[in-house]
Amino acid sequence: MSMTPEISEKLHESFAKQSMMSTFGARIDEIRHGQVTLHAPINEGCMQQHGFAHAALTFGLGDSAAGYSALSVMPLEAEVLTSEMKIHLLAPAKGERLEAVGKVIKPGKRLVIVQAEVFAVSDSTRTQVALMTGTMVPVLPK
Amino acid sequence: MSMTPEISEKLHESFAKQSMMSTFGARIDEIRHGQVTLHAPINEGCMQQHGFAHAALTFGLGDSAAGYSALSVMPLEAEVLTSEMKIHLLAPAKGERLEAVGKVIKPGKRLVIVQAEVFAVSDSTRTQVALMTGTMVPVLPK
Amino acid sequence: MSMTPEISEKLHESFAKQSMMSTFGARIDEIRHGQVTLHAPINEGCMQQHGFAHAALTFGLGDSAAGYSALSVMPLEAEVLTSEMKIHLLAPAKGERLEAVGKVIKPGKRLVIVQAEVFAVSDSTRTQVALMTGTMVPVLPK
Amino acid sequence: MSMTPEISEKLHESFAKQSMMSTFGARIDEIRHGQVTLHAPINEGCMQQHGFAHAALTFGLGDSAAGYSALSVMPLEAEVLTSEMKIHLLAPAKGERLEAVGKVIKPGKRLVIVQAEVFAVSDSTRTQVALMTGTMVPVLPK
Repeated sequence: MSMTPEISEKLHESFAKQSMMSTFGARIDEIRHGQVTLHAPINEGCMQQHGFAHAALTFGLGDSAAGYSALSVMPLEAEVLTSEMKIHLLAPAKGERLEAVGKVIKPGKRLVIVQAEVFAVSDSTRTQVALMTGTMVPVLPK
Repeated sequence: MSMTPEISEKLHESFAKQSMMSTFGARIDEIRHGQVTLHAPINEGCMQQHGFAHAALTFGLGDSAAGYSALSVMPLEAEVLTSEMKIHLLAPAKGERLEAVGKVIKPGKRLVIVQAEVFAVSDSTRTQVALMTGTMVPVLPK
Repeated sequence: MSMTPEISEKLHESFAKQSMMSTFGARIDEIRHGQVTLHAPINEGCMQQHGFAHAALTFGLGDSAAGYSALSVMPLEAEVLTSEMKIHLLAPAKGERLEAVGKVIKPGKRLVIVQAEVFAVSDSTRTQVALMTGTMVPVLPK
Repeated sequence: MSMTPEISEKLHESFAKQSMMSTFGARIDEIRHGQVTLHAPINEGCMQQHGFAHAALTFGLGDSAAGYSALSVMPLEAEVLTSEMKIHLLAPAKGERLEAVGKVIKPGKRLVIVQAEVFAVSDSTRTQVALMTGTMVPVLPK
Protein backbone atom coordinates (compact mmCIF):
# COMPACT_ATOMS: atom_id res chain seq x y z
CA MET A 1 0.00 0.00 0.00
CA SER A 2 1.38 3.37 -0.94
CA MET A 3 1.47 6.61 0.99
CA THR A 4 -0.99 9.26 -0.12
CA PRO A 5 0.31 12.83 -0.37
CA GLU A 6 -2.37 13.80 2.20
CA ILE A 7 -0.96 11.43 4.82
CA SER A 8 2.57 12.63 4.16
CA GLU A 9 1.49 16.27 4.46
CA LYS A 10 -0.41 15.53 7.67
CA LEU A 11 2.70 13.96 9.24
CA HIS A 12 4.88 16.92 8.25
CA GLU A 13 2.33 19.34 9.74
CA SER A 14 2.10 17.37 12.97
CA PHE A 15 5.88 17.15 13.23
CA ALA A 16 6.18 20.91 12.73
CA LYS A 17 3.91 21.47 15.73
CA GLN A 18 6.21 19.54 18.08
CA SER A 19 8.38 22.28 19.57
CA MET A 20 10.49 19.60 21.28
CA MET A 21 11.54 18.29 17.85
CA SER A 22 12.50 21.83 16.91
CA THR A 23 14.48 22.24 20.16
CA PHE A 24 16.28 19.00 19.27
CA GLY A 25 16.87 20.17 15.67
CA ALA A 26 15.13 17.02 14.45
CA ARG A 27 14.10 16.49 10.81
CA ILE A 28 12.02 13.96 8.90
CA ASP A 29 14.15 11.89 6.52
CA GLU A 30 11.56 9.60 5.00
CA ILE A 31 7.89 8.68 5.33
CA ARG A 32 6.68 5.34 4.02
CA HIS A 33 3.54 3.35 4.76
CA GLY A 34 4.31 1.90 8.19
CA GLN A 35 7.89 3.21 8.45
CA VAL A 36 9.22 6.67 9.29
CA THR A 37 12.85 7.80 9.63
CA LEU A 38 13.94 10.89 11.57
CA HIS A 39 17.29 12.35 12.58
CA ALA A 40 18.67 14.94 14.99
CA PRO A 41 22.15 16.31 15.57
CA ILE A 42 24.14 15.33 18.66
CA ASN A 43 25.08 18.79 19.82
CA GLU A 44 26.28 20.53 22.96
CA GLY A 45 22.86 21.00 24.48
CA CYS A 46 21.72 17.37 24.58
CA MET A 47 24.45 15.57 26.51
CA GLN A 48 24.40 13.33 29.56
CA GLN A 49 27.15 13.44 32.18
CA HIS A 50 29.69 11.35 30.21
CA GLY A 51 29.53 13.40 27.01
CA PHE A 52 27.21 11.13 25.02
CA ALA A 53 23.74 12.04 23.72
CA HIS A 54 21.20 11.94 26.56
CA ALA A 55 18.65 9.11 26.64
CA ALA A 56 15.93 11.79 26.48
CA LEU A 57 17.05 12.59 22.93
CA THR A 58 17.36 8.92 21.95
CA PHE A 59 13.96 8.14 23.45
CA GLY A 60 12.27 11.27 22.07
CA LEU A 61 13.49 10.66 18.54
CA GLY A 62 12.65 6.95 18.61
CA ASP A 63 9.23 7.57 20.16
CA SER A 64 8.41 10.15 17.47
CA ALA A 65 9.58 7.90 14.65
CA ALA A 66 7.51 5.04 16.04
CA GLY A 67 4.46 7.25 16.60
CA TYR A 68 4.58 8.63 13.06
CA SER A 69 5.00 5.15 11.62
CA ALA A 70 1.74 4.29 13.39
CA LEU A 71 0.07 7.48 12.19
CA SER A 72 1.08 6.64 8.62
CA VAL A 73 -1.20 3.58 8.64
CA MET A 74 -4.18 5.27 10.35
CA PRO A 75 -7.14 7.05 8.77
CA LEU A 76 -6.47 10.65 7.70
CA GLU A 77 -8.55 12.12 10.53
CA ALA A 78 -6.74 10.20 13.30
CA GLU A 79 -4.21 11.49 15.78
CA VAL A 80 -1.88 9.25 17.79
CA LEU A 81 -0.73 8.99 21.42
CA THR A 82 2.01 6.86 22.97
CA SER A 83 0.57 4.59 25.64
CA GLU A 84 3.75 2.81 26.67
CA MET A 85 7.28 2.33 25.38
CA LYS A 86 10.29 0.28 26.44
CA ILE A 87 13.78 1.29 25.46
CA HIS A 88 16.94 -0.83 25.63
CA LEU A 89 20.07 1.34 25.47
CA LEU A 90 22.63 -0.80 23.64
CA ALA A 91 25.67 1.45 23.22
CA PRO A 92 26.83 4.99 24.03
CA ALA A 93 25.24 7.55 21.66
CA LYS A 94 28.40 9.02 20.21
CA GLY A 95 28.71 10.62 16.79
CA GLU A 96 27.38 13.48 14.70
CA ARG A 97 23.71 12.63 14.74
CA LEU A 98 21.08 10.15 15.82
CA GLU A 99 18.86 8.45 13.27
CA ALA A 100 15.63 6.76 14.32
CA VAL A 101 13.70 4.27 12.20
CA GLY A 102 10.15 3.62 13.44
CA LYS A 103 8.12 0.66 12.13
CA VAL A 104 4.66 -0.76 12.61
CA ILE A 105 4.85 -4.30 14.00
CA LYS A 106 1.10 -4.87 14.20
CA PRO A 107 -1.56 -2.41 13.02
CA GLY A 108 -4.99 -2.26 14.65
CA LYS A 109 -8.01 -0.07 15.17
CA ARG A 110 -7.53 0.30 18.89
CA LEU A 111 -3.80 -0.27 19.30
CA VAL A 112 -0.80 -0.17 17.00
CA ILE A 113 2.29 -2.07 18.16
CA VAL A 114 5.48 -0.35 17.03
CA GLN A 115 9.24 -0.71 17.11
CA ALA A 116 12.04 1.81 16.74
CA GLU A 117 15.74 1.37 16.18
CA VAL A 118 18.01 4.32 16.90
CA PHE A 119 21.49 4.64 15.43
CA ALA A 120 24.40 6.95 16.20
CA VAL A 121 25.90 8.03 12.91
CA SER A 122 29.19 9.70 12.01
CA ASP A 123 31.07 9.97 8.71
CA SER A 124 32.36 6.47 8.88
CA THR A 125 30.21 4.60 11.38
CA ARG A 126 26.58 3.71 12.08
CA THR A 127 26.03 2.01 15.45
CA GLN A 128 22.70 0.90 16.85
CA VAL A 129 22.28 2.61 20.22
CA ALA A 130 18.70 1.70 21.11
CA LEU A 131 15.91 -0.80 20.48
CA MET A 132 12.39 0.26 21.44
CA THR A 133 9.00 -1.47 21.40
CA GLY A 134 5.72 0.16 22.34
CA THR A 135 2.02 0.71 22.03
CA MET A 136 0.41 3.58 20.10
CA VAL A 137 -3.26 4.53 20.50
CA PRO A 138 -5.26 6.11 17.66
CA VAL A 139 -7.33 9.12 18.69
CA LEU A 140 -10.30 9.82 16.41
CA PRO A 141 -12.45 12.97 16.36
CA LYS A 142 -15.78 12.44 18.15
CA MET B 1 21.01 4.69 56.10
CA SER B 2 21.70 8.37 55.71
CA MET B 3 23.14 10.26 52.78
CA THR B 4 26.70 11.40 53.14
CA PRO B 5 27.53 14.96 52.00
CA GLU B 6 30.02 13.41 49.54
CA ILE B 7 27.31 11.41 47.77
CA SER B 8 25.03 14.41 47.62
CA GLU B 9 27.82 16.56 46.19
CA LYS B 10 28.70 13.88 43.65
CA LEU B 11 25.09 13.77 42.40
CA HIS B 12 24.92 17.55 42.08
CA GLU B 13 28.19 17.59 40.13
CA SER B 14 27.02 14.81 37.82
CA PHE B 15 23.68 16.55 37.26
CA ALA B 16 25.46 19.82 36.42
CA LYS B 17 27.38 18.00 33.65
CA GLN B 18 24.17 16.91 31.88
CA SER B 19 23.63 19.66 29.32
CA MET B 20 20.25 18.11 28.44
CA MET B 21 19.02 18.80 31.98
CA SER B 22 20.18 22.40 31.54
CA THR B 23 18.39 22.65 28.16
CA PHE B 24 15.26 21.37 29.93
CA GLY B 25 15.73 23.85 32.82
CA ALA B 26 15.66 20.89 35.23
CA ARG B 27 16.65 21.19 38.90
CA ILE B 28 17.26 18.78 41.77
CA ASP B 29 14.62 19.12 44.49
CA GLU B 30 15.74 16.51 46.96
CA ILE B 31 18.33 13.75 47.34
CA ARG B 32 17.74 10.98 49.84
CA HIS B 33 19.28 7.52 50.16
CA GLY B 34 17.49 5.61 47.39
CA GLN B 35 15.13 8.41 46.32
CA VAL B 36 15.75 11.52 44.20
CA THR B 37 13.25 14.20 43.13
CA LEU B 38 13.75 16.50 40.14
CA HIS B 39 11.58 19.05 38.35
CA ALA B 40 11.54 20.96 35.08
CA PRO B 41 9.26 23.67 33.72
CA ILE B 42 6.75 22.87 30.98
CA ASN B 43 7.66 25.66 28.60
CA GLU B 44 7.27 26.56 24.95
CA GLY B 45 10.23 24.58 23.71
CA CYS B 46 9.25 21.13 24.99
CA MET B 47 5.81 20.52 23.52
CA GLN B 48 4.37 17.69 21.46
CA GLN B 49 1.82 18.32 18.72
CA HIS B 50 -1.22 18.68 21.02
CA GLY B 51 0.32 21.32 23.29
CA PHE B 52 1.29 19.04 26.16
CA ALA B 53 4.82 18.36 27.40
CA HIS B 54 6.63 15.95 25.06
CA ALA B 55 7.28 12.39 26.23
CA ALA B 56 10.99 13.09 25.73
CA LEU B 57 10.84 15.53 28.66
CA THR B 58 8.76 13.18 30.79
CA PHE B 59 11.08 10.28 30.00
CA GLY B 60 14.27 12.31 30.39
CA LEU B 61 13.29 13.68 33.78
CA GLY B 62 12.04 10.32 35.07
CA ASP B 63 15.09 8.48 33.76
CA SER B 64 17.42 10.98 35.45
CA ALA B 65 15.52 10.82 38.76
CA ALA B 66 15.63 7.02 38.63
CA GLY B 67 19.31 6.96 37.68
CA TYR B 68 20.31 9.30 40.48
CA SER B 69 18.26 7.33 43.00
CA ALA B 70 20.38 4.32 41.96
CA LEU B 71 23.60 6.34 42.16
CA SER B 72 22.67 7.45 45.69
CA VAL B 73 22.99 3.87 46.95
CA MET B 74 26.20 3.01 45.05
CA PRO B 75 29.81 3.39 46.24
CA LEU B 76 31.24 6.90 45.93
CA GLU B 77 33.48 5.96 42.99
CA ALA B 78 30.65 4.47 40.88
CA GLU B 79 28.95 5.96 37.85
CA VAL B 80 25.61 4.75 36.52
CA LEU B 81 24.11 3.91 33.11
CA THR B 82 20.52 3.16 32.12
CA SER B 83 20.28 -0.28 30.56
CA GLU B 84 16.54 -0.34 29.88
CA MET B 85 13.45 1.60 30.90
CA LYS B 86 9.73 1.19 30.31
CA ILE B 87 7.40 4.16 30.52
CA HIS B 88 3.61 4.12 30.77
CA LEU B 89 2.12 7.50 29.86
CA LEU B 90 -0.98 7.81 32.05
CA ALA B 91 -2.32 11.32 31.35
CA PRO B 92 -1.51 14.42 29.25
CA ALA B 93 1.42 16.36 30.75
CA LYS B 94 -0.32 19.69 31.26
CA GLY B 95 0.62 22.26 33.89
CA GLU B 96 3.45 24.52 34.99
CA ARG B 97 6.08 21.92 35.62
CA LEU B 98 6.89 18.22 35.72
CA GLU B 99 8.13 16.62 38.90
CA ALA B 100 9.87 13.22 38.83
CA VAL B 101 10.41 11.02 41.87
CA GLY B 102 12.93 8.21 41.29
CA LYS B 103 13.22 5.31 43.74
CA VAL B 104 15.34 2.20 44.13
CA ILE B 105 13.18 -0.94 44.06
CA LYS B 106 16.02 -3.41 44.45
CA PRO B 107 19.67 -2.48 44.96
CA GLY B 108 22.46 -4.76 43.75
CA LYS B 109 26.13 -4.82 42.84
CA ARG B 110 25.56 -5.56 39.18
CA LEU B 111 22.06 -4.16 38.59
CA VAL B 112 19.81 -1.72 40.41
CA ILE B 113 16.08 -1.97 39.67
CA VAL B 114 14.41 1.43 39.80
CA GLN B 115 11.03 3.09 39.46
CA ALA B 116 10.04 6.67 38.64
CA GLU B 117 6.73 8.46 38.95
CA VAL B 118 6.30 11.69 37.03
CA PHE B 119 3.68 14.30 37.96
CA ALA B 120 2.38 17.37 36.12
CA VAL B 121 2.01 20.13 38.67
CA SER B 122 0.21 23.47 38.61
CA ASP B 123 -0.86 25.81 41.41
CA SER B 124 -3.84 23.72 42.32
CA THR B 125 -3.25 20.25 40.85
CA ARG B 126 -0.73 17.40 40.88
CA THR B 127 -1.52 14.64 38.38
CA GLN B 128 0.56 11.52 37.78
CA VAL B 129 1.47 11.48 34.10
CA ALA B 130 3.91 8.57 33.95
CA LEU B 131 5.03 5.38 35.67
CA MET B 132 8.45 4.01 34.77
CA THR B 133 10.40 0.90 35.74
CA GLY B 134 13.93 0.13 34.64
CA THR B 135 17.39 -1.28 35.12
CA MET B 136 20.45 0.76 36.08
CA VAL B 137 24.00 -0.57 35.77
CA PRO B 138 26.81 0.57 38.07
CA VAL B 139 30.04 1.47 36.28
CA LEU B 140 33.14 1.23 38.46
CA PRO B 141 36.60 2.58 37.63
CA LYS B 142 38.95 -0.19 36.50
CA MET C 1 -17.16 1.42 44.59
CA SER C 2 -18.16 -2.05 45.66
CA MET C 3 -18.04 -5.32 43.75
CA THR C 4 -21.35 -6.68 42.56
CA PRO C 5 -21.96 -10.43 43.07
CA GLU C 6 -22.38 -10.69 39.27
CA ILE C 7 -18.87 -9.40 38.61
CA SER C 8 -17.40 -11.68 41.23
CA GLU C 9 -19.25 -14.67 39.78
CA LYS C 10 -18.11 -13.76 36.26
CA LEU C 11 -14.46 -13.69 37.37
CA HIS C 12 -14.74 -17.05 39.08
CA GLU C 13 -16.35 -18.56 35.97
CA SER C 14 -13.66 -17.13 33.70
CA PHE C 15 -10.90 -18.36 36.04
CA ALA C 16 -12.41 -21.86 36.07
CA LYS C 17 -12.17 -21.95 32.26
CA GLN C 18 -8.39 -21.38 32.32
CA SER C 19 -6.99 -24.89 32.24
CA MET C 20 -3.49 -23.46 32.74
CA MET C 21 -4.55 -22.14 36.14
CA SER C 22 -5.83 -25.61 36.95
CA THR C 23 -2.54 -27.17 35.79
CA PHE C 24 -0.75 -24.72 38.09
CA GLY C 25 -3.13 -25.50 40.97
CA ALA C 26 -3.94 -21.78 41.21
CA ARG C 27 -6.81 -20.41 43.29
CA ILE C 28 -8.52 -17.04 43.70
CA ASP C 29 -7.92 -15.58 47.17
CA GLU C 30 -9.78 -12.30 46.94
CA ILE C 31 -11.66 -10.18 44.42
CA ARG C 32 -12.09 -6.48 45.08
CA HIS C 33 -12.99 -3.62 42.75
CA GLY C 34 -9.68 -3.05 40.92
CA GLN C 35 -7.63 -5.59 42.89
CA VAL C 36 -7.45 -9.37 42.64
CA THR C 37 -5.24 -11.79 44.62
CA LEU C 38 -4.37 -15.31 43.44
CA HIS C 39 -2.02 -18.01 44.69
CA ALA C 40 -0.48 -21.24 43.42
CA PRO C 41 1.69 -23.86 45.09
CA ILE C 42 5.38 -24.13 44.24
CA ASN C 43 5.51 -27.82 43.49
CA GLU C 44 7.70 -30.31 41.69
CA GLY C 45 6.26 -29.70 38.23
CA CYS C 46 6.93 -25.96 37.96
CA MET C 47 10.65 -25.58 38.57
CA GLN C 48 13.44 -23.93 36.59
CA GLN C 49 16.94 -25.39 36.46
CA HIS C 50 18.07 -24.09 39.86
CA GLY C 51 15.14 -25.50 41.82
CA PHE C 52 13.12 -22.29 42.12
CA ALA C 53 9.65 -21.68 40.69
CA HIS C 54 9.87 -21.06 36.94
CA ALA C 55 9.28 -17.55 35.61
CA ALA C 56 6.39 -18.98 33.56
CA LEU C 57 4.51 -19.63 36.81
CA THR C 58 5.40 -16.23 38.27
CA PHE C 59 4.42 -14.50 35.03
CA GLY C 60 1.26 -16.54 34.52
CA LEU C 61 -0.01 -15.92 38.02
CA GLY C 62 0.82 -12.20 37.96
CA ASP C 63 -0.65 -11.76 34.47
CA SER C 64 -3.89 -13.45 35.54
CA ALA C 65 -4.15 -11.39 38.74
CA ALA C 66 -3.57 -8.22 36.75
CA GLY C 67 -6.03 -9.22 34.04
CA TYR C 68 -8.78 -10.03 36.53
CA SER C 69 -8.18 -6.77 38.39
CA ALA C 70 -8.85 -5.04 35.05
CA LEU C 71 -11.90 -7.20 34.39
CA SER C 72 -13.28 -6.28 37.83
CA VAL C 73 -13.65 -2.64 36.76
CA MET C 74 -15.11 -3.34 33.28
CA PRO C 75 -18.77 -3.69 32.27
CA LEU C 76 -20.33 -7.08 32.98
CA GLU C 77 -20.38 -8.08 29.29
CA ALA C 78 -16.66 -7.37 28.72
CA GLU C 79 -13.83 -9.85 28.35
CA VAL C 80 -10.16 -8.92 28.70
CA LEU C 81 -6.93 -9.61 26.81
CA THR C 82 -3.33 -8.88 27.76
CA SER C 83 -1.71 -6.65 25.15
CA GLU C 84 1.74 -6.32 26.74
CA MET C 85 3.37 -6.99 30.08
CA LYS C 86 6.81 -6.34 31.56
CA ILE C 87 8.12 -8.39 34.43
CA HIS C 88 11.09 -7.64 36.68
CA LEU C 89 12.27 -10.74 38.53
CA LEU C 90 13.54 -9.44 41.87
CA ALA C 91 14.45 -12.56 43.85
CA PRO C 92 14.46 -16.36 43.51
CA ALA C 93 10.92 -17.78 43.85
CA LYS C 94 11.51 -20.09 46.80
CA GLY C 95 8.89 -21.18 49.30
CA GLU C 96 5.60 -23.03 49.57
CA ARG C 97 3.51 -20.92 47.27
CA LEU C 98 3.40 -17.83 45.08
CA GLU C 99 0.88 -15.10 45.77
CA ALA C 100 0.05 -12.50 43.10
CA VAL C 101 -1.71 -9.21 43.77
CA GLY C 102 -3.00 -7.49 40.62
CA LYS C 103 -4.12 -3.85 40.68
CA VAL C 104 -5.58 -1.35 38.26
CA ILE C 105 -3.26 1.64 37.89
CA LYS C 106 -5.40 3.51 35.36
CA PRO C 107 -8.82 2.37 34.15
CA GLY C 108 -10.07 3.29 30.67
CA LYS C 109 -12.54 2.31 27.98
CA ARG C 110 -9.93 1.24 25.49
CA LEU C 111 -6.98 0.31 27.70
CA VAL C 112 -6.53 -0.53 31.35
CA ILE C 113 -3.04 -0.07 32.80
CA VAL C 114 -2.30 -2.65 35.47
CA GLN C 115 0.37 -3.71 37.92
CA ALA C 116 1.06 -7.00 39.67
CA GLU C 117 3.31 -7.86 42.58
CA VAL C 118 4.21 -11.50 43.10
CA PHE C 119 5.42 -12.85 46.44
CA ALA C 120 7.00 -16.18 47.44
CA VAL C 121 5.44 -17.23 50.71
CA SER C 122 6.38 -19.84 53.28
CA ASP C 123 5.35 -20.29 56.91
CA SER C 124 7.61 -17.59 58.15
CA THR C 125 8.51 -15.43 55.15
CA ARG C 126 6.91 -13.39 52.37
CA THR C 127 9.38 -12.11 49.78
CA GLN C 128 8.51 -10.06 46.71
CA VAL C 129 9.82 -11.97 43.69
CA ALA C 130 8.37 -9.94 40.82
CA LEU C 131 7.03 -6.54 39.82
CA MET C 132 4.94 -6.38 36.64
CA THR C 133 3.30 -3.53 34.69
CA GLY C 134 1.16 -3.98 31.62
CA THR C 135 -1.70 -3.09 29.34
CA MET C 136 -5.08 -4.87 29.30
CA VAL C 137 -7.60 -4.47 26.48
CA PRO C 138 -11.35 -4.78 27.04
CA VAL C 139 -13.14 -6.93 24.48
CA LEU C 140 -16.84 -6.16 24.11
CA PRO C 141 -19.45 -8.28 22.31
CA LYS C 142 -20.27 -6.84 18.88
CA MET D 1 31.64 -18.56 15.81
CA SER D 2 30.55 -22.12 16.10
CA MET D 3 28.93 -23.98 18.98
CA THR D 4 31.12 -26.36 20.87
CA PRO D 5 29.61 -29.77 21.76
CA GLU D 6 30.22 -28.92 25.43
CA ILE D 7 28.00 -25.82 25.26
CA SER D 8 25.29 -27.75 23.44
CA GLU D 9 25.42 -30.54 26.02
CA LYS D 10 25.30 -28.01 28.87
CA LEU D 11 22.14 -26.43 27.45
CA HIS D 12 20.44 -29.80 27.03
CA GLU D 13 21.31 -30.74 30.62
CA SER D 14 20.04 -27.46 31.97
CA PHE D 15 16.82 -27.74 29.95
CA ALA D 16 16.25 -31.27 31.28
CA LYS D 17 16.38 -29.91 34.85
CA GLN D 18 13.49 -27.47 34.20
CA SER D 19 10.47 -29.45 35.35
CA MET D 20 8.22 -26.67 34.04
CA MET D 21 9.46 -27.37 30.51
CA SER D 22 8.63 -31.04 31.06
CA THR D 23 5.15 -30.12 32.35
CA PHE D 24 4.70 -28.05 29.17
CA GLY D 25 6.01 -30.92 27.00
CA ALA D 26 8.62 -28.54 25.57
CA ARG D 27 11.55 -29.69 23.45
CA ILE D 28 14.73 -28.12 22.07
CA ASP D 29 14.63 -27.84 18.28
CA GLU D 30 17.96 -26.19 17.56
CA ILE D 31 20.91 -24.66 19.37
CA ARG D 32 23.16 -22.24 17.51
CA HIS D 33 25.64 -19.68 18.79
CA GLY D 34 23.36 -16.88 19.99
CA GLN D 35 20.09 -18.44 18.80
CA VAL D 36 17.97 -21.21 20.32
CA THR D 37 14.64 -22.62 19.09
CA LEU D 38 12.17 -24.49 21.30
CA HIS D 39 8.64 -25.78 20.85
CA ALA D 40 5.77 -27.05 22.98
CA PRO D 41 2.36 -28.51 22.11
CA ILE D 42 -0.80 -26.48 22.61
CA ASN D 43 -2.77 -29.03 24.56
CA GLU D 44 -5.77 -29.19 26.88
CA GLY D 45 -3.89 -28.29 30.04
CA CYS D 46 -2.43 -24.94 28.94
CA MET D 47 -5.43 -22.89 27.86
CA GLN D 48 -6.72 -19.46 28.86
CA GLN D 49 -10.42 -18.72 29.16
CA HIS D 50 -11.07 -18.29 25.41
CA GLY D 51 -9.51 -21.59 24.35
CA PHE D 52 -6.16 -20.26 23.16
CA ALA D 53 -2.76 -21.12 24.65
CA HIS D 54 -2.23 -19.23 27.91
CA ALA D 55 0.27 -16.37 28.00
CA ALA D 56 2.15 -18.29 30.69
CA LEU D 57 3.07 -20.89 28.07
CA THR D 58 3.95 -18.28 25.46
CA PHE D 59 6.02 -16.34 27.98
CA GLY D 60 7.65 -19.41 29.49
CA LEU D 61 8.71 -20.80 26.14
CA GLY D 62 9.97 -17.44 24.84
CA ASP D 63 11.80 -16.68 28.07
CA SER D 64 13.54 -20.07 27.99
CA ALA D 65 14.50 -19.71 24.32
CA ALA D 66 15.89 -16.24 25.02
CA GLY D 67 17.71 -17.38 28.15
CA TYR D 68 19.35 -20.31 26.39
CA SER D 69 20.38 -18.10 23.47
CA ALA D 70 22.19 -15.96 26.07
CA LEU D 71 23.71 -19.02 27.74
CA SER D 72 24.99 -20.21 24.35
CA VAL D 73 27.34 -17.20 24.14
CA MET D 74 28.55 -17.32 27.77
CA PRO D 75 31.57 -19.16 29.20
CA LEU D 76 31.02 -22.86 29.87
CA GLU D 77 30.93 -22.40 33.66
CA ALA D 78 28.22 -19.70 33.58
CA GLU D 79 24.56 -20.01 34.49
CA VAL D 80 21.92 -17.48 33.46
CA LEU D 81 19.01 -15.67 35.14
CA THR D 82 16.27 -13.54 33.62
CA SER D 83 16.33 -10.06 35.12
CA GLU D 84 13.44 -8.54 33.18
CA MET D 85 11.36 -9.34 30.12
CA LYS D 86 8.64 -7.54 28.18
CA ILE D 87 6.17 -9.44 26.07
CA HIS D 88 3.83 -8.06 23.40
CA LEU D 89 1.02 -10.49 22.63
CA LEU D 90 0.28 -9.97 18.95
CA ALA D 91 -2.36 -12.58 18.07
CA PRO D 92 -4.31 -15.43 19.71
CA ALA D 93 -2.11 -18.50 20.23
CA LYS D 94 -4.13 -20.99 18.22
CA GLY D 95 -2.74 -24.08 16.51
CA GLU D 96 -0.96 -27.34 17.25
CA ARG D 97 2.16 -26.01 18.89
CA LEU D 98 4.10 -22.94 19.86
CA GLU D 99 7.59 -22.36 18.54
CA ALA D 100 9.94 -19.86 20.21
CA VAL D 101 13.09 -18.46 18.64
CA GLY D 102 15.40 -16.71 21.11
CA LYS D 103 18.26 -14.50 19.91
CA VAL D 104 21.06 -12.49 21.46
CA ILE D 105 20.72 -8.81 20.55
CA LYS D 106 23.76 -7.61 22.48
CA PRO D 107 26.17 -9.87 24.37
CA GLY D 108 28.06 -8.63 27.41
CA LYS D 109 29.90 -9.77 30.52
CA ARG D 110 27.38 -8.36 32.96
CA LEU D 111 24.19 -8.29 30.89
CA VAL D 112 23.00 -9.97 27.71
CA ILE D 113 20.15 -8.27 25.86
CA VAL D 114 17.89 -10.81 24.18
CA GLN D 115 14.82 -11.08 21.97
CA ALA D 116 12.33 -13.87 21.42
CA GLU D 117 9.69 -14.35 18.77
CA VAL D 118 6.96 -16.90 19.44
CA PHE D 119 4.88 -18.47 16.67
CA ALA D 120 1.69 -20.54 16.72
CA VAL D 121 2.10 -23.32 14.19
CA SER D 122 -0.34 -25.72 12.58
CA ASP D 123 -0.10 -27.87 9.45
CA SER D 124 -0.71 -24.98 7.14
CA THR D 125 0.00 -21.80 9.11
CA ARG D 126 2.72 -20.12 11.16
CA THR D 127 1.58 -16.94 12.90
CA GLN D 128 3.70 -14.75 15.16
CA VAL D 129 1.90 -14.51 18.48
CA ALA D 130 4.49 -12.70 20.62
CA LEU D 131 7.52 -10.42 20.53
CA MET D 132 9.69 -10.29 23.62
CA THR D 133 12.76 -8.28 24.65
CA GLY D 134 14.65 -8.70 27.88
CA THR D 135 17.78 -8.74 29.99
CA MET D 136 19.69 -11.88 30.99
CA VAL D 137 22.31 -11.90 33.73
CA PRO D 138 25.26 -14.31 33.70
CA VAL D 139 25.90 -16.04 37.03
CA LEU D 140 29.46 -17.27 37.48
CA PRO D 141 30.71 -19.67 40.17
CA LYS D 142 32.52 -17.80 42.97
